[in-house]
This record gives sequence, structure tokens and C-alpha cells, in this order.
Amino acid sequence: MKAVVKTNRTRGLELIEIPEPKLGPRDVLIKVHVASICGTDVHIDDWTNWAQQRFTPPHTIGHEFAGYVEEVGKEVTFVKVGERVSAESHISCGYCYQCKNGDREICRKSKLLGVDCDGTFAEYLSLPEHVLWKDDPHIPDKWASIQEPFGNAVDTVMSEDISSKTVLILGAGPIGLFAVGIAKACGASLIIVSDPNDYRLDIGKKMGANIAANPKKTDILKLVLEATGGNGVDVVLEFSGNTLALDQGLKSLTPGGRISILGIYETPVNIDLNKEVIFKKIRIYGITGRKIFSTWYKTSRFLSSGLVDPSPVITHTFSLEEYEKGMQLMRDGKCGKVILKLFQ
Amino acid sequence: MKAVVKTNRTRGLELIEIPEPKLGPRDVLIKVHVASICGTDVHIDDWTNWAQQRFTPPHTIGHEFAGYVEEVGKEVTFVKVGERVSAESHISCGYCYQCKNGDREICRKSKLLGVDCDGTFAEYLSLPEHVLWKDDPHIPDKWASIQEPFGNAVDTVMSEDISSKTVLILGAGPIGLFAVGIAKACGASLIIVSDPNDYRLDIGKKMGANIAANPKKTDILKLVLEATGGNGVDVVLEFSGNTLALDQGLKSLTPGGRISILGIYETPVNIDLNKEVIFKKIRIYGITGRKIFSTWYKTSRFLSSGLVDPSPVITHTFSLEEYEKGMQLMRDGKCGKVILKLFQ
Amino acid sequence: MKAVVKTNRTRGLELIEIPEPKLGPRDVLIKVHVASICGTDVHIDDWTNWAQQRFTPPHTIGHEFAGYVEEVGKEVTFVKVGERVSAESHISCGYCYQCKNGDREICRKSKLLGVDCDGTFAEYLSLPEHVLWKDDPHIPDKWASIQEPFGNAVDTVMSEDISSKTVLILGAGPIGLFAVGIAKACGASLIIVSDPNDYRLDIGKKMGANIAANPKKTDILKLVLEATGGNGVDVVLEFSGNTLALDQGLKSLTPGGRISILGIYETPVNIDLNKEVIFKKIRIYGITGRKIFSTWYKTSRFLSSGLVDPSPVITHTFSLEEYEKGMQLMRDGKCGKVILKLFQ
Amino acid sequence: MKAVVKTNRTRGLELIEIPEPKLGPRDVLIKVHVASICGTDVHIDDWTNWAQQRFTPPHTIGHEFAGYVEEVGKEVTFVKVGERVSAESHISCGYCYQCKNGDREICRKSKLLGVDCDGTFAEYLSLPEHVLWKDDPHIPDKWASIQEPFGNAVDTVMSEDISSKTVLILGAGPIGLFAVGIAKACGASLIIVSDPNDYRLDIGKKMGANIAANPKKTDILKLVLEATGGNGVDVVLEFSGNTLALDQGLKSLTPGGRISILGIYETPVNIDLNKEVIFKKIRIYGITGRKIFSTWYKTSRFLSSGLVDPSPVITHTFSLEEYEKGMQLMRDGKCGKVILKLFQ
Repeated sequence: MKAVVKTNRTRGLELIEIPEPKLGPRDVLIKVHVASICGTDVHIDDWTNWAQQRFTPPHTIGHEFAGYVEEVGKEVTFVKVGERVSAESHISCGYCYQCKNGDREICRKSKLLGVDCDGTFAEYLSLPEHVLWKDDPHIPDKWASIQEPFGNAVDTVMSEDISSKTVLILGAGPIGLFAVGIAKACGASLIIVSDPNDYRLDIGKKMGANIAANPKKTDILKLVLEATGGNGVDVVLEFSGNTLALDQGLKSLTPGGRISILGIYETPVNIDLNKEVIFKKIRIYGITGRKIFSTWYKTSRFLSSGLVDPSPVITHTFSLEEYEKGMQLMRDGKCGKVILKLFQ
Repeated sequence: MKAVVKTNRTRGLELIEIPEPKLGPRDVLIKVHVASICGTDVHIDDWTNWAQQRFTPPHTIGHEFAGYVEEVGKEVTFVKVGERVSAESHISCGYCYQCKNGDREICRKSKLLGVDCDGTFAEYLSLPEHVLWKDDPHIPDKWASIQEPFGNAVDTVMSEDISSKTVLILGAGPIGLFAVGIAKACGASLIIVSDPNDYRLDIGKKMGANIAANPKKTDILKLVLEATGGNGVDVVLEFSGNTLALDQGLKSLTPGGRISILGIYETPVNIDLNKEVIFKKIRIYGITGRKIFSTWYKTSRFLSSGLVDPSPVITHTFSLEEYEKGMQLMRDGKCGKVILKLFQ
Repeated sequence: MKAVVKTNRTRGLELIEIPEPKLGPRDVLIKVHVASICGTDVHIDDWTNWAQQRFTPPHTIGHEFAGYVEEVGKEVTFVKVGERVSAESHISCGYCYQCKNGDREICRKSKLLGVDCDGTFAEYLSLPEHVLWKDDPHIPDKWASIQEPFGNAVDTVMSEDISSKTVLILGAGPIGLFAVGIAKACGASLIIVSDPNDYRLDIGKKMGANIAANPKKTDILKLVLEATGGNGVDVVLEFSGNTLALDQGLKSLTPGGRISILGIYETPVNIDLNKEVIFKKIRIYGITGRKIFSTWYKTSRFLSSGLVDPSPVITHTFSLEEYEKGMQLMRDGKCGKVILKLFQ
Repeated sequence: MKAVVKTNRTRGLELIEIPEPKLGPRDVLIKVHVASICGTDVHIDDWTNWAQQRFTPPHTIGHEFAGYVEEVGKEVTFVKVGERVSAESHISCGYCYQCKNGDREICRKSKLLGVDCDGTFAEYLSLPEHVLWKDDPHIPDKWASIQEPFGNAVDTVMSEDISSKTVLILGAGPIGLFAVGIAKACGASLIIVSDPNDYRLDIGKKMGANIAANPKKTDILKLVLEATGGNGVDVVLEFSGNTLALDQGLKSLTPGGRISILGIYETPVNIDLNKEVIFKKIRIYGITGRKIFSTWYKTSRFLSSGLVDPSPVITHTFSLEEYEKGMQLMRDGKCGKVILKLFQ
């Protein structure tokens, strides 16, 4: 079968033929129909420092997808051949302190799909049944594929009830853009999105932002104070991984507010804890992964009910063979989410 | 000044001339521009059992309004002459266990506006400054007047995060109808509203209900199970005060769900606690009043941001002199919220 | 092997020889060292209405135990031969809406150990590995066996933070008595326990109750009001399954308080919702089972750290052959928890 | 009357005679019986950078006390002459966004007692009635005086339920030591306290710490991992204001844990957000002040019920004239809490 593989410890990927995966008794073979590209995939392609430390070739990359069950191991009971599925990308151990406590998204022995084992940029994929999610039939394939990153946004937005709150969203990559739509659907009363990329700000407006501002041109803190009658926002959602943005975010928070952080930073971050966190009694939520599977239910419902329409974020569709076009658009910031379509 | 007064312990009300209220040092005199009628006012008019036990004549009735500050006591600092205000109807003591703990809505020495002291169906009204709320300028007078009952709906809907949840709303009086709009604004993924009055169900659809069903014609439990794939709803909001509706609500809840109850019952209620609450691990929230003033902020934002448009619920406007027309429409169930307009 | 079996649809149990259980690939064979008797076992013995509707003979009864792994199925990875284990008694499906949402204690296809399948009153027991709990080595066998009901008490006490709160505990059976110890360990500032059985009240004092009162002799509401300066208690924990106790509990709650209910009632219950729940803004938690496995961690730590010493509750130890002595003590209310010891 | 006053913008304080305070209509005159010294008072004495920016002389310093009502303004209703009171030190405006939302501890116009207005190191004190707290009669004067800082510890410990959790407490000044006692009372299953001062570690053991470790001699992270079976602690409480301690704290947290921070840092803090907060899904709570007055109820109950005995922390008592002895002990780290006794 065809697969996009990081074959050795150097820059680049290869589209090559590899054998179809084998199935253990509780595994499921899936024919991938669509996959989608995450920033992680670009990091592995570019062989960045993070990738060099985290990824051991060879592996097929990719962890977002929707596909159809082709074959099931003999003890599989959850899914049947022909059902459409996506999957949680954190393959958790089930037995560590975190897993047993119901926090499988932070399993300490977690394997990441497409990083620690063969991923989704291939015609077929084998996964243990416990990570599978049955896709709602009302959700089209492309939307089903983006449920994994959409779930990141769901948990960032919803770490506390956001309804009626004023919100600043930092970073308008695909997950930040999903967050705009989710915050809107949840009844945030004011959504300001900030990003240095005007192309993405434009999508932010389509997703429901009241104000889309470019921090290169606009003083974000001043904007926030004006838009909130001098109070500052109740909620900051940080997706940018940019330390200046984080600093603006903390300053923009009203005393008693909360910030949820999914963005990843290149270096440790300098924070004026006294002024920006302690005296203001701020709550900070580190966010990673998604609750397994309560977040998937929320995601599925936002998408299937029409409460969030992610179409403006899904900007490009390519064939698997064209994966490098998608990678390049992502490097250039000239896209939202890029889909790879494997079968018609 | 003119006022609608319950003058003695018998059925009926009178529109009479009474002296303008006097001000203490921390009191505020308000010129009432609009007031609105609550079911409580009808009870007092009709001199029901509840009213006979709770109300001591003579008092001007009414507790919903918007008006303008006409004069302030010498120690008042919160508002100025000319500002538009509404007010929390629970005039709390500030010193009991509940008040000191931040739960002033359940103050054990609470006085109710228009019940324990002179209310809002009058040209002028005196209130202590600590119960006043400054109306957002984006909110028109009629909407400002309904913030008090709207806040009841806010607390019922939001006693837990409702975003993405499936919801059954029982009772489509004005508060239930506001709840439909609020649940919609907060991103409930499915809203079913049930009421025996088709006129009100029609307003429920306008407020955003996915399904509006008449329990005289439809098996609500069956409907819920079909609409939720057999799971039952995550949330029930009970506004009807009807024991059959409550029973249907409890049966409609999926295990692990929650029910918030604002409806008032004529008699004690029989509940199969084992089956409907304990084995299903249900959470029940009794709801009364509103958080003072965090609920008012939520209310104000839902209304000022356009997230909830209460217009379909506000069905009739009369002059103060025509108050009895409004009372009769409410008895007949042929209205949503009825507004009394005192000045143009 | 020897086992206590309900062999047919009639009153009584039999101690008989049955074959050792067989193992599937993910099952674990356990040699039972101690088991303990629950009220459920007495119901099955007595063939009460509940038992007649719920239990299909023949099955070995019992669902509390501690034992040692004797053999593991070929795919088992969690435990090894020789390890000491107990188990969650709710054998959940893993795939229903509740399970996938992380609420396996209310799985809608749950099988109960010793009710829907062969239980723990036998020399050997087979269980799927996913329900096993590795016992902390600091916990003696008898204490390990009572972790299952202790967990019921943990979830009842801790459905909200109880530290510094005033508490009324209704019903001093073994679970209510564990709750006294847990509430004490969690820093409840006042614990009143109520039960008509003086023998059990005496154990309640040993477990840390400030006041132990017999409702046949004492007006519980009056007692509560006196002990709380007229406020009422912040928390009621209802284990009695007695409707009069529940009524006293609701009346004893201060406005804004919460009640958690584990007790099971013989009939539907009449509640003055207006007065006791809605106007007082009470939260009611139905409690069943235990969170799997976060409650087990809490339980294990309370017991292993010495924060709760359950010894006063563990009043009798018998051999398996003497099970009927234990059943009779429970019927007579002349015991706390009764242990059956199978091996020395 | 005698008062300890910062008279001008330079190092040092003066014990001088000043006029008794005047009373407004809602003010209360209190005869101070005991006051206690906070680190803030030492900062003002030493005229540190913080003090130079924050404090405008002349003002009597001090914000912890217990005293008796001597006289009340004509509109005061909460207290009567002769009642014993303490007070919340944050004198909030009551009208800002935070106050109206019930978060008066982060009022944006807050005045601090003994910093922005005359404080407690004086024979008499005038305060608005809304900040007063009636002391429980079971609490002796010295304990009543330390309720204010004790409340800081209460909110740090209880920002989430700590019962059964494993805890690392960083910094064993008086507030950290109160936190040890509170965490113990709330049923923390393991309490490790870390401080470079062995004198204070010794008090930590008396307050209930399982392990008291000196980071100059012991590798705290290694200690934590050994004591928690490799998991790390569930909770970190940071009182030290030391960046190395904070770093150790974050590393010591198990994934999914929380840290509450009351300590104040001399400089902005460098945090590896990716590794220590985001990938581990940590919650950070900035803590300041106390909830007004729900924290005071908790404090009062912990002290009056005997759940926490703060005696080991209260190490020295002086007369008002000897205040400088107390200040010096605090600079030297040779004390817990120092009490000033004004009347016998």
C-alpha cells in the first residue's frame, strides 16, 4: 500500500509502498478515506529539533483521518466491517495512575499515532479498538477527519463555562479558528481574535469573531480594554505559542479571569506572576489532547448539529500524492486546514 | 402618584393615588418607565392560598421594571440622577449566614419587592441602592424590564455548563421561553420544549427550540428517546410546576444527567428516587432568584450582544391603567410576557 | 470448590461444591482470602421482592473481597500471579454513552458481581482484568475487602468538598459508619449521625461523630438547629433509605446546602419540593457505585494512610461455612460489617 | 492614643501619640486587644522597593487584629458595642465589575488596611461595618487575630478539594505552616513541607506534615517521587516566593495536578510551560486575599472546632511598645507568627 513515511533521520518524507499492517486480536484494520495535516506533521517533515528528539524513523506519519473498517481482530466487539470511524491519537496504556483516574489524555505511557507508531497518511491503518470513534453519519468525511484537532479546541474553550463571557483568542491557526467557532456556538458575548496573518484573521471573522485584529498593526491590550469598558476579558485562549501574545493575553485578563493554553513555546516563558496571575487571582489551564471520549461527543455534536460550521477553516484538498503541496501551504501560512483525500 | 395596590385581604387590585415614597440616606427614587407582569402578580390579584399566606396589604404590587433615577439619598454613591436602572427583587439583609457567604438570593430575611414592600406598578419607586442594576444602554426599555425573570432562566439553564448538551425544557411560560433562547445561545445541541399550550409552543420554536411538543398529543418520553438515539437527554429544565411533567422529565434524563427545577408545585411531589435519581446518579438543582449580581451580568450580555432576542416572548404592551387586561391574558395563557408602559 | 449459591427461586442459600471458573483470554482467576457481606446478599438470601425481580439463579453470591491472583488469561497484562487484588463490582460494557463519557459506574449494560454473574463467596473467582484493583500492601485483608462499600461512602461524602462543613449523616449501617469516618478525615467541622439503633450509634461515635442521636428519642431537626446556631447543616448524607429520615434531612439543610443520597427506598418518596428544595436552592446528588477507579484511589489512601480506621465498623469474622451467622446478625442489626475468612 | 506609624518616606517606624479616629455613619470604632505582624509590615518598616511604590505616609500600619466594638456610627446595624470583632483587610468598593460579581477580594479599587489607610497597630481603629467579622467566642484573642492570614492559607489549600490528595507545601512561613495544618485537617493523605529554615520545618512537623525537608540538604523532587511511588504529588501549594522552589514544585506535580500560588516573587519567573504545564495538563491558581466572607466561615470553623490548632505557629507575644523585637525576629526567620498584645 502507499504511505507517506519518514524513512530516516533527515529532512523530508517519502511516498513509498509498504506492506499492509497486521492485526492483533483487538485491532481493527481501517481503509483511510481522508486524512488531514497537522503542524506536527510539518515538524516531522522539516526534521526540527522537536522531531529529532521525539520521532524514531521509519514510521508513516499523520494522526487525523476518517476511514472505513475493513477487517476486525477476532476479539473486537465495538465496531463492525463497513462502519466509518476516526480515532483518538493518544494510544493510552489504560493502567497508569492517570489512565486509572480517568485522565487517559495524559497517560504517562501514551503512544502518539503517526509519531510513535504508523499513522494515517496511508491507504490502510491498524488501530486498537479502544481508541476508535464511530463517526456520526451527519458529518461529512472532511469534517470527520478534523475531529481530532477540533477536540483540542473544544477542551481549550470549555475548560470552564464560556457562555456570556468576553474572550480573547490568540493565534488563528486551524485550532484557534475552530475555537472561534466553538466559543461563538457556546454563547461568548464578545470574541476578539488576534493573529499576525490577515488571511487567517479573515477566516476568523467568518467563524464568528466580533473583532479580528493584527497585533502588528493594533495594540491588542488597548483594543481589549476599549471593547470591554475597561474591564479586560474574562477568558483568554492561547493557541499561538508566541510569548508576546501570551504576555498580551495575561495583561488583557480581568482580575478573576482564566486563561487556557494549548500553544507550544520554543523556549521557557517569562511571566510576571505577581502582577499578572497572583494579585489578579487568575486561573491557568494547561491543555493537551482531548478527554477520551467525552470531548469527542461534544465535538461530534457541535459538527453534526450545525452549531459549528468548520468549512471556512478547511481551505484546501489534495490527493495523498500531493501531500507536499499541503505541507508548503502550511509553512507559508496560506491555508487553514489541509485535507488529503485518498479515495473518492 | 398612581399605583396598582392590593388594598385589602380580598380578591382584586385597585389603581389609586398614593403619596410618593420617601427616601432614606441610602435610598434611590426611581421614575418607572416600564414594568412587566409576573405570575406572582396574578396570584396576588386572585388572592390565592399562596397570596393569602404571604402578602400583607396594603402594598403596591410588581417587581419587574426599568426606570430612571429621579433623586438619591445623601449617602448614595452607586447611581446618579438620570441613569436608567432596574433592580434585583430580593432585598437581602446582608448579614445572615447566606448573605455573608455570597448567596444573597437565599437570604433568610429577604424582603420581596412588590410583596413585602411597595413594588413597581407605580409612577415612582424607592429602593436601597444595593439592589440597583444599571441597565446597559444597548438594551431597550422593554427588554430591561424583563431582566429579572430572564435571570431566573439564566440560572436554571446555566446551573451546569449546557454547551453541546441535549435538553428537555418543561413549561413554556415566559421564563421557560427565555430558557429556550438562552440554551440555544449557549450551544445546546438539541432543545425539546414541552407545553400543553400550542400558542406558547409556537413562541418556543421562534426562540430556537428544535422540537416543540404538546404532551396532550405526544408521548414526551418516547419523543426524547427517539431524538437522542435512545440515550435520553443530558439536561432537563423544569418550569411547569406540573408533577406529570416532572415525572416525564426525570424519566427522560440519561443516567448521569441533571435537572434544574424552578417550577413551583401545588402539592408535595411523589418521586421514585431509587429508579429516577439514585441508580441513574442524577443531580437535582433547586433554583430560586438569581445570583446577585453575577447573573445580572450574564443576562445583560445575552440581551445586549444580540445572543438572545426576547422579542417573540414579549407579546403585549399596555398602559398602567390597562393592567387588568394583562392579568386576564395571563390567566388565559394567551400571551408571553406582558409589559406595562407608564411613560412614553 | 466450595461456594455459597442461590440455587433456585426461593428463600435461602446453599453452600455447595461447584466447578472452578474458566478463564477467557483477558480474565483472571483469583483465590478469595476474605469476602464481606453486604445488605444485597441478605436480600438475595431472603428472596425479597427486589431479589425476585433482579436475580436469576443459580449464581454464587457476594461482591466484596480480597484475594490473590492464581492464574491469568493469555492476554492479561495488568496483574501477575501472586498479586493481591480486589475488584469493582460493576462490570461495565465499555462502549455505551455513559462508559465512553467516563461514567462507567452507571454503564447501562452493567453486570453486577454476585448478582448477574458468579460472585465472591467462593474459593475461586474469575474476573475480567479491567475491573481489578491492586490492593495497597499497607492495607490488611479485611480492610481490603471492604473497599467496595467504603467507596460508596467516599462518593457520597465527597460529591462536593465537605471540609469545614457541618454534616448530618442519616443511617449508621456500615456505609453510613464509613461515611462518618471519611467526613471526619476530610475535616467536617460538625458531624451528627442519626440511627434508631443504639449499637450502631455507639460505633458512630468511635468513628468520629460529634453527636450520635437516636430519632426515636431525639427530635433530630431541633438538635440540628441547636448545634448549628439556627442555620441548619450544610450537608446531609442519606444512607437510611427511610422516608422519615429523608424528610428530617431536607428540613435540616440550611438554604444553599446539598444532600447526597445513597439509601434505597421501599416506595416512591413524597417531597415538598417548593419548601425543601427550590426556595432553599438545594442540590441533590443521587449516588450509586463508585467512580472507576478514581474513587478506589481515594479509598485506598484513606485506609492506607491511617486517615480512616474502619476497625470499629468491622465487628465480626466468620468462616465461609458460617455465612448464615453473619446474615442473621445483619438482619438483627447487631453488627457492623461482617467478614468471611476463607483462608488463613 | 498610641500607634505604630510610618511617618515619612524612609526606613523605620515610630510609636507615637495620634488622635483617635473619627466615625462616619456606617463606621465602627474598635478597641484593639491583639494585633499580629505580617511580612507586609516588615516591608513597610524596611521601606523596600515594594513599600516605596505602594505606601504613602503617614499611616498607622498593621492589618491583623482582634478587638472590641467601642462605638458605632448611627446607621450601623451589624455589630453592637462590646462585641468582639476582627476584619477583612481588603476594603472593597462594592461597585466594580469584580465586587458586583461576588469577587470582592479582587476589587479593583480596594484599599488595604494598614497600607492605604490607618491600620491595627494602634489602640483604636475605625472600620466600615461591611468589612467586620464577628469572632467566634470559642476562639481565643490570639487565634482571632491570625484569622486574616489563616484565610490566605485556607484559600490556597482549598482552591480544589484536597481530601485524600498528596501535597507538597513550599515555604514554611506562618501562612505555609497554617496550610500544613489545614491540609492535614482536610484529609490530605501525604503532606511534604519544604523550607530552608529548620526551625520552621520543626513547626511544620508539629502542624502535621508527614515529611519536613530542607531543600539545601535534600533533593525535593527525588523525595517527592520516592514518597509517591513515582507519580509525583497531586497538589503543590507555593508560599515561598522563591523561583527555585516554584520550579521544583512544577516538576514535582503529577500530570493532571494543580498548583496554587500565594508566594510573591522578586522578579518575573521563567517557566517551561510546555513541559511543566501544558503537556502535563496542570491547573495553576493565583491566590490573593480571601473570599469575603465565605473563607472567614471556613477559617472560624477550623479554629473553633479544634480541627486546626495554630498554637505551634504562634511563637512570640510582645507588647505594642516592643513591636520592633517582633519585626527583627521575622527578619531573622526565628519565629512563626508574632502577636502584639495591647490590653490584658
